[in-house]
Amino acid sequence: MTTKKTFLSEEFLPKQWYNLNADFPKPMPPPLHPGTGKPPTPEDFAPIFPMNLVEQEMTPARWVDIPAEVREVYRIWRPTPLYRADRLEKALDAPVKIYFKNEGVSPPGSHKPNTAVAQAWYNKAFGVKRLVTETGAGQWGSALAFATKLLGLECKVFMVRVSYDQKPYRRLMMQTWGAECVASPTDTTEAGRKILAKNPDSPGSLGIAISEAIEQAVQRKDTRYSLGSVLNHVMLHQTVIGLEAKKQLEALGDYPDVVIGCAGGGSNFAGASFPFIADKIAGKQIQVIAAEPTSCPTMTRGPYAYDFGDTNQTTPLLPMHTLGHDFVPAPIHAGGLRYHGMAPMVSHAIRLGLIEPVAIDQVETFESGLLFARTEGFIPAPETNHAIAAVIRAAKQAKEEGKQKTIFFNWSGHGLVDLAAYDAYLTGKLKPYSLPDEEIQRALKAIEKLPKIA
Amino acid sequence: MTTKKTFLSEEFLPKQWYNLNADFPKPMPPPLHPGTGKPPTPEDFAPIFPMNLVEQEMTPARWVDIPAEVREVYRIWRPTPLYRADRLEKALDAPVKIYFKNEGVSPPGSHKPNTAVAQAWYNKAFGVKRLVTETGAGQWGSALAFATKLLGLECKVFMVRVSYDQKPYRRLMMQTWGAECVASPTDTTEAGRKILAKNPDSPGSLGIAISEAIEQAVQRKDTRYSLGSVLNHVMLHQTVIGLEAKKQLEALGDYPDVVIGCAGGGSNFAGASFPFIADKIAGKQIQVIAAEPTSCPTMTRGPYAYDFGDTNQTTPLLPMHTLGHDFVPAPIHAGGLRYHGMAPMVSHAIRLGLIEPVAIDQVETFESGLLFARTEGFIPAPETNHAIAAVIRAAKQAKEEGKQKTIFFNWSGHGLVDLAAYDAYLTGKLKPYSLPDEEIQRALKAIEKLPKIA
Repeated sequence: MTTKKTFLSEEFLPKQWYNLNADFPKPMPPPLHPGTGKPPTPEDFAPIFPMNLVEQEMTPARWVDIPAEVREVYRIWRPTPLYRADRLEKALDAPVKIYFKNEGVSPPGSHKPNTAVAQAWYNKAFGVKRLVTETGAGQWGSALAFATKLLGLECKVFMVRVSYDQKPYRRLMMQTWGAECVASPTDTTEAGRKILAKNPDSPGSLGIAISEAIEQAVQRKDTRYSLGSVLNHVMLHQTVIGLEAKKQLEALGDYPDVVIGCAGGGSNFAGASFPFIADKIAGKQIQVIAAEPTSCPTMTRGPYAYDFGDTNQTTPLLPMHTLGHDFVPAPIHAGGLRYHGMAPMVSHAIRLGLIEPVAIDQVETFESGLLFARTEGFIPAPETNHAIAAVIRAAKQAKEEGKQKTIFFNWSGHGLVDLAAYDAYLTGKLKPYSLPDEEIQRALKAIEKLPKIA
Repeated sequence: MTTKKTFLSEEFLPKQWYNLNADFPKPMPPPLHPGTGKPPTPEDFAPIFPMNLVEQEMTPARWVDIPAEVREVYRIWRPTPLYRADRLEKALDAPVKIYFKNEGVSPPGSHKPNTAVAQAWYNKAFGVKRLVTETGAGQWGSALAFATKLLGLECKVFMVRVSYDQKPYRRLMMQTWGAECVASPTDTTEAGRKILAKNPDSPGSLGIAISEAIEQAVQRKDTRYSLGSVLNHVMLHQTVIGLEAKKQLEALGDYPDVVIGCAGGGSNFAGASFPFIADKIAGKQIQVIAAEPTSCPTMTRGPYAYDFGDTNQTTPLLPMHTLGHDFVPAPIHAGGLRYHGMAPMVSHAIRLGLIEPVAIDQVETFESGLLFARTEGFIPAPETNHAIAAVIRAAKQAKEEGKQKTIFFNWSGHGLVDLAAYDAYLTGKLKPYSLPDEEIQRALKAIEKLPKIA
């Protein structure tokens, strides 16, 4: 038996999620209430999130039980296959073994349902009947539409208008799973009407869509808001990826020297890497790399500071790497990596030296993704191409150093509904782009007057 | 351990394909050379197919070894998961167990690479450097693009112009895997120029595209033609589906009372059902159902007769259920079921009473597919929805009869690049459509003067 695709039996599906907050050598700075300047109380979150998820957001527990019904839904696509990328290895001709987790096998095609299913379940357990969320390119919205349908909740998604118009496939996916999907800004919310009054043709933004979703969530007692990244409980749910991978690698008698993921809000990266970072804290010598786009270099060029999670300043202040809540990233194809901030847990781990961030240009990422598709077969999502580019860099480095290395990375999703991006690359329409310094300086003005991290 | 997704280990991947031709109680009528009226010799096929595949097309052997390198590529996505559709069962409230094979986990998202990989390998072994084929909606073209890239051959695909223009995603998939994809008719072939002279804006057809592909294949010594359905060797390669399913069901201690697949050219249906039909010939009491669209009712309303495989009458005469080689099916969303004929092996099995064909209207198929997506999670291809509709009919029948039944069906592919079809259904744009009798009578004039099956 070789190791191409392996270890899919029930026993590799974890019974608990792992919480890195229990093992950080130094605790994370708390979020702050923008009004009081103090950490928010659980009650502050009550209109937005169900209390069981608020507790999970704040829990110091190392392990959190995965509810049986969540595991039952996970079993539709989990455990996900661990692959040995032997054809890619051969093409790179480097002294490396490359493994990846294929999170693209879920019904919506990405890692997002790992937390969507969990969030839907906790909301249902708390008596919530309906979830409202926002989505940019549509990965998160489609995952929540899938999860709520299977668990029997209603779902409404505010989708950024420019994506709603230009990327119909993810919207159609949401509708196929029975969710209501509307183009944001709408005239059904205060926040939306304010924008439309100024600009009736507004293309929308993630910041506006978040404000619309939160506004509608707090209006109805049976409704809550749901977020697909950034928060602690989202990172927690995603750890099924790394926990499975560790067991699968262990069954192969292997362990990685390098762990790699792409990071936008941070959730797929955290999910794949945190169980390995636990070992690093305990003394293991491993390198953990988070790859982001040069057009939105939150981790590599944004300061570690308190900032709002959304443009409209409705969230608590979060301690994170940020380019400022006003920052509007260029419309790159990797829509999932277009976020001004980075999850507080990932940001804290960077500060502690546990993670090395790297920024990669989109042309290099598509070149890497194309090599992957033409050797391993599966066509990666544009976001995932950032992880693949970092893997290829690590393989080349191992060759230069003359060292044998084992690389593990998270293949966060497939690119079957992102093929227009490959077309742009293949026809030479993609150009290299690094965010200019002056744009960063301008964007960071938005956080000048906010409290600083101690 | 439950049975949601199971038995994915190496041992379930077959080492041999199964050939139903070895077990038919009565042999199939031979194909006929249209010029001589006699069965074609292997040499007749030599300019079109490599001799090792011609031999396989004609072999009486019951088992054919799967080459090691083909199995290595299969292992990228095979064995495919066998699922218990317990959420669908619950929604149907019928005394049935429903199992399905998820063939959508392959990189192109359907069962097509099962034969594409095999055909690419045999051509390569024969010294061929380049394959030419045609594709309608693009499932087959994308599968051959994937297979040739992984095995190191060049690939050219003539894609029917109307699909080339209207369905860019499959074309982009082919290009991502490095294939050349052109809109047919082209001005690079005699056949294409003839059509363009009459109508420069011709939308193309599968018949024209086949003629263009064959014409180019025979021009170059390093090139051969490849077909994704209908032929015996294609049915043979697809039997990995049914062979795996039998082993997986056996490991669960189960065996189906009803086996179901959708059938256009017949390959996914044959692949899933032939290993079970072998048992039926040996005495097992099982029902085998092939589902087709009412808009293209080849099996249910077309006679069993000799006919050409293509519109331009370039192929041998094949003994099959046919609506006549001139027949142009309505532009339904299930593009893979729009073919005037049915594989000779499937047609023969129908005549022998081994298979029950059923025609289902597209509105019922999408209603069924939507119920599947909203219970089991995965969004099915429009073709696959025909199988699901037949499953739901079988479940309702079991309920009416008050009988416990185990149903197995082939989930031939996902619908993630066919979501426009779901949109048409959800917005009420799909209308019921049965092919009128007078159209069938008109189409069948094309075969009036051809030899009859003895």
